[in-house]
Amino acid sequence: MSILVVGSVAFDSIETPHGKRERCLGGAATHFALAASFFTDVRVIAVVGEDFTAEHEAVLTRRRIDTRGIEHLPGKSFHWSGSYVKSLNDAETLNTELNVFETFSPKIPSAYEDSEFLFLANIDPVLQANVRAQMPKVRLAFGDTMNYWITGHTENLLKVLKHLDGLLINDGEAKLLAHDTNLVAAAKKIHELGPKTLVIKHGEYGATAFFSENVFGGKRRVHPFRAPALPLETVVDPTGAGDSFAGGFFGYIASQGEMTPAVVKRAMFYGGVMGSFAVERFGTERIQSLTRDEIDARFAIFEELSHLE
Amino acid sequence: MSILVVGSVAFDSIETPHGKRERCLGGAATHFALAASFFTDVRVIAVVGEDFTAEHEAVLTRRRIDTRGIEHLPGKSFHWSGSYVKSLNDAETLNTELNVFETFSPKIPSAYEDSEFLFLANIDPVLQANVRAQMPKVRLAFGDTMNYWITGHTENLLKVLKHLDGLLINDGEAKLLAHDTNLVAAAKKIHELGPKTLVIKHGEYGATAFFSENVFGGKRRVHPFRAPALPLETVVDPTGAGDSFAGGFFGYIASQGEMTPAVVKRAMFYGGVMGSFAVERFGTERIQSLTRDEIDARFAIFEELSHLE
Repeated sequence: MSILVVGSVAFDSIETPHGKRERCLGGAATHFALAASFFTDVRVIAVVGEDFTAEHEAVLTRRRIDTRGIEHLPGKSFHWSGSYVKSLNDAETLNTELNVFETFSPKIPSAYEDSEFLFLANIDPVLQANVRAQMPKVRLAFGDTMNYWITGHTENLLKVLKHLDGLLINDGEAKLLAHDTNLVAAAKKIHELGPKTLVIKHGEYGATAFFSENVFGGKRRVHPFRAPALPLETVVDPTGAGDSFAGGFFGYIASQGEMTPAVVKRAMFYGGVMGSFAVERFGTERIQSLTRDEIDARFAIFEELSHLE
Repeated sequence: MSILVVGSVAFDSIETPHGKRERCLGGAATHFALAASFFTDVRVIAVVGEDFTAEHEAVLTRRRIDTRGIEHLPGKSFHWSGSYVKSLNDAETLNTELNVFETFSPKIPSAYEDSEFLFLANIDPVLQANVRAQMPKVRLAFGDTMNYWITGHTENLLKVLKHLDGLLINDGEAKLLAHDTNLVAAAKKIHELGPKTLVIKHGEYGATAFFSENVFGGKRRVHPFRAPALPLETVVDPTGAGDSFAGGFFGYIASQGEMTPAVVKRAMFYGGVMGSFAVERFGTERIQSLTRDEIDARFAIFEELSHLE
């Protein structure tokens, strides 16, 4: 079943201890869509400038991603510059040029209207709410956000959260959103804000899902589930790891069509698998060359890494 | 099979957001021995003062722990005061009184000489080396250490590590010891220092074991294995969580008598289980009241928390 993702398609200039890349293809929607495309059909809503060429678009269409919802405007695409030289765990933002993104007003092509799954990547919650309102009939709506929106645009964010089935954020974001330093307590508070499924990402330590027995109805027992991250000796570029996790996670759920505990658990593993590939090379390089066989082989490694038998 | 543990038997004065305790029974050897006693026979080598009463000793002997190696000296026992009020993840040491521990010279009773498993809890590496040298025939020798010994007593520590089969430390200690911020690279460097099995504890995120196929010989493929920690809404007192983890981990290995990958994996889970109980109440309170049935029930929760099926 189809996922509609709305978010940034952008260019990133990245410096890490392993080298530099200038203006490589990036953005949350790009990383999410590429990862999810290994599991299901993906449709993208975003805005780009004249620097986004046919060659860039082909990175997406080669993975059969529907790009009809990418609006082309005069000017330049969103451009982020960041450095991981001081720490691979914390991006230092050197520069952010919103460019065409500044006036982004998401429009949903009629061909996208039958999308059953919606992912609101990390953008202004006002835009997230706008898209959510235009897609009232989706089976599941998940989203992402970041500290900037949590602290500075709280009310707008809370409005979106009411209409989300699930939220994927990291430790620090969850604690900030819930005003609680205990993850279990934070998860309970975030459930009350709307999302009945919460995935908290712990970076190199994996991720924890807190989910209800059955989001389509029935009893609401909350399960915690912990998925490992792969211990990696070399992390070339962490950019997009979280979005790739989200793409693997939500892509697998969409491919199964329903969110049973068994599906959520496997989705957590696929999220970790896609995140582990994303960081092996710069930008989208590794995911571009990835095969389904490699995904299956790494899924087996994740099982060996965490299962008693 | 019997474990001999050498380390501190002490009194702790602890303050956490959940309350205070003055001079409750603690010390690494105490927490380790109590946790390990649910799996195998345990013998303790330590030194205490006149404030260590028959009532304190009974906490150990009620769990059938052999206390003949606890030396009684005039004066007071080791006393640590700490606070977790600022953060449950970092103990703030308010005061340390070594007392009788200052002149501790471990003596091994002849009744202990047939111990097959040796655990060197976190004490001066000179004392660890002393005990290791007195027990040349143990099947497996594991140990613990801390930043203080890693940075200030490096040479002495390196001498002990050469004669250890395994080491249990936390993330920060592993990175400090290996001079490497990447855990996989750090694990490889620590393997080179001696211990062929390394357990790195990640606090609330669980723990990772890096272990060889078979430490008793054969090929040396290194497996990583990640065990979860239980997401807990309430942590009353983190003191002794790491020592309880070590007791569950090494206690289970000793109970099985050999260190196959399957045994190490289950040992990691038992470590997590014992750590999760330890923090539920102050000091040794929770472990004192614990039953084997509760351990088995929580082991099943750890499986549900991390396994796909």
